[in-house]
Amino acid sequence: MISSNYYKLSEQYLFSRIGRIISERHGAINLSIGDVSLPLPREVSEAGARAAMELGDKSTFRGYPPECGYDFLRKAVARYYNDRGVTVDQSEVFISDGIKSDMAMFFHVFNRGKVLLPTPCYPAYIDVCAIFGFEVSFYEDAPSEEKADIIVICSPDNPTGRAKSKAELEAWVRYAKRTGAIILYDAAYEAFVQSGAPRSIYEIEGARECAVELCSFSKTAGFTGLRCGYTVVPSECGLGKVWARLKSSLSNGVSYVTQRMAECALTSALDKIRGNVKQYLDNAALFRSALSGADFVGGEDSPYIWLRVGDGKAEFYRFLDEYNLGVTPGYGFGRNGDGYVRINSFCSKENAIVAAQRLRDWVRGRG
Amino acid sequence: MISSNYYKLSEQYLFSRIGRIISERHGAINLSIGDVSLPLPREVSEAGARAAMELGDKSTFRGYPPECGYDFLRKAVARYYNDRGVTVDQSEVFISDGIKSDMAMFFHVFNRGKVLLPTPCYPAYIDVCAIFGFEVSFYEDAPSEEKADIIVICSPDNPTGRAKSKAELEAWVRYAKRTGAIILYDAAYEAFVQSGAPRSIYEIEGARECAVELCSFSKTAGFTGLRCGYTVVPSECGLGKVWARLKSSLSNGVSYVTQRMAECALTSALDKIRGNVKQYLDNAALFRSALSGADFVGGEDSPYIWLRVGDGKAEFYRFLDEYNLGVTPGYGFGRNGDGYVRINSFCSKENAIVAAQRLRDWVRGRG
Repeated sequence: MISSNYYKLSEQYLFSRIGRIISERHGAINLSIGDVSLPLPREVSEAGARAAMELGDKSTFRGYPPECGYDFLRKAVARYYNDRGVTVDQSEVFISDGIKSDMAMFFHVFNRGKVLLPTPCYPAYIDVCAIFGFEVSFYEDAPSEEKADIIVICSPDNPTGRAKSKAELEAWVRYAKRTGAIILYDAAYEAFVQSGAPRSIYEIEGARECAVELCSFSKTAGFTGLRCGYTVVPSECGLGKVWARLKSSLSNGVSYVTQRMAECALTSALDKIRGNVKQYLDNAALFRSALSGADFVGGEDSPYIWLRVGDGKAEFYRFLDEYNLGVTPGYGFGRNGDGYVRINSFCSKENAIVAAQRLRDWVRGRG
Repeated sequence: MISSNYYKLSEQYLFSRIGRIISERHGAINLSIGDVSLPLPREVSEAGARAAMELGDKSTFRGYPPECGYDFLRKAVARYYNDRGVTVDQSEVFISDGIKSDMAMFFHVFNRGKVLLPTPCYPAYIDVCAIFGFEVSFYEDAPSEEKADIIVICSPDNPTGRAKSKAELEAWVRYAKRTGAIILYDAAYEAFVQSGAPRSIYEIEGARECAVELCSFSKTAGFTGLRCGYTVVPSECGLGKVWARLKSSLSNGVSYVTQRMAECALTSALDKIRGNVKQYLDNAALFRSALSGADFVGGEDSPYIWLRVGDGKAEFYRFLDEYNLGVTPGYGFGRNGDGYVRINSFCSKENAIVAAQRLRDWVRGRG
């Protein structure tokens, strides 16, 4: 009776399993699961506290939120795009409790088809394709002649930490428009882009006709514990009505308290959340410098560094046993992941300094 | 490319459409969409405010919540059952952002099959079966010989407001065990039961082997704006591992702030949330008395009254135009809904007094 799709999944979700192994190791610095460590800006907490108190007062109580999000937040998100010259209307912004939920919503829209996934790949994408029974094919870099209904692009990429260039994204948009495919663009790490690479697929001409963009407050604003994200469904792609209709049957929207906190993060606390991102990027710069001489990418436009290590599984345990560092073994990200580990820079500054020294020791120890 | 299942849905989700029509009518009292009106108990708001402030402090910051819920809340939910003599272990409690999300999770577990739905039926169940492509058959009351994989039972029922008796539920549990079906038991309105009817399917012997129970803080604790629910997946039914695994790929859990508020609702604020439920039941008693002489059920174990009116659509407009009352036309609940309207008692006491008078006028006006 249980869905046969379930049996296609690995026994435990990668990050849960790795997290357990690392947390049992006393003194290890965890550079594995991509969870933030800096507290929220005080304004954001206060916006939440205020909203919670409003719900306890007769004159300011609110019930069901609008299924697609409060206008105040949809507007703040649209402005977050507009202020960097990207055209997004607030009616095209759909608030969610995070990218995982919107991934599922996206697959509900299509129900069946063939998906092109990057490789290595964030495992939740592999899982969701299995759960929904979509056919999967992997791409390594640029579009080939292979046809698909859906193309998943994550940029800056998880796990490699690489941001796709404008030219690369242009090639994908051309491909999607030629073949009639839809791009599912995961921009969860857009706030980390420093190099001038695109932060949104909508910086590419024609993308509004063929791309849906998923984003989240988790990494941008440290909201992993609060659960808030958004999806842009441009009017030109013709999916907005379907999206809104499915959302009304599958969800009842996102907490008013959370939405007020998210609004604050994008408005009065915007400089502070940018400061937090900067601190994680500073950690990444420390790691990059410590890894000098090793073979890696990422860490410039992303909190992730993708490090070539040889035998990924053995090296995961060597990092843990000999250097007291928890990293994520690359094999968990599928084909092309083996032989690498992912390191993230979400730890505190103090831990980053210690971890950088341990990475330096690891580089020396390789010899 | 868009899922053919989408085209099986009605154009707009019933409650959104009805809500719009009523909200445009000046002076109408809305007894339609089942949204609460009483503010949260002050302790609950304060628990939320405290939790929001914790996230702004380095020493108390928390990132990703556990995917299946914080232990403090799972424990509070288990105790909420245990205190009325129902066996539920905290490991069997899965926290969600509401029943709609857990309905979807449930259908992911099975992926395909035949579903028995009640009729009349809460429309989100009809929608979710369509979205997932399940075959649907309707039952009127007791089990027949018809076989199915899943049986949805809502008690106290939405829309009829009737709580199933112990004997009725025993018949369904026997049927499920004989046929190998799984019961999806929606207990969203359990807190309203006054008559001694079961509040949980687990009050029925053998139900732990064949039933999953969905519940929510929305109506129990006035959490419609906060989004929190829970599902009990008993160890005997053998679905807990699948549930946890799917949840880890399809969601990242529920806001820490919300979970602290829910914990407070089930512990220190429990008497107050019971007081709020009592107030809604008092409103329902006013309505029942006003409707004396008319043909209706519900309103004793439920905030809903299911009133026979003749032509449901015409009467919906007559309630609105002549009596300034927004009700829900029964045809939106499918077969057996036509000819009825649903009235809820979630309004303020002041509005309930005015609405009761209008209902009395309606009863007189029928002659």
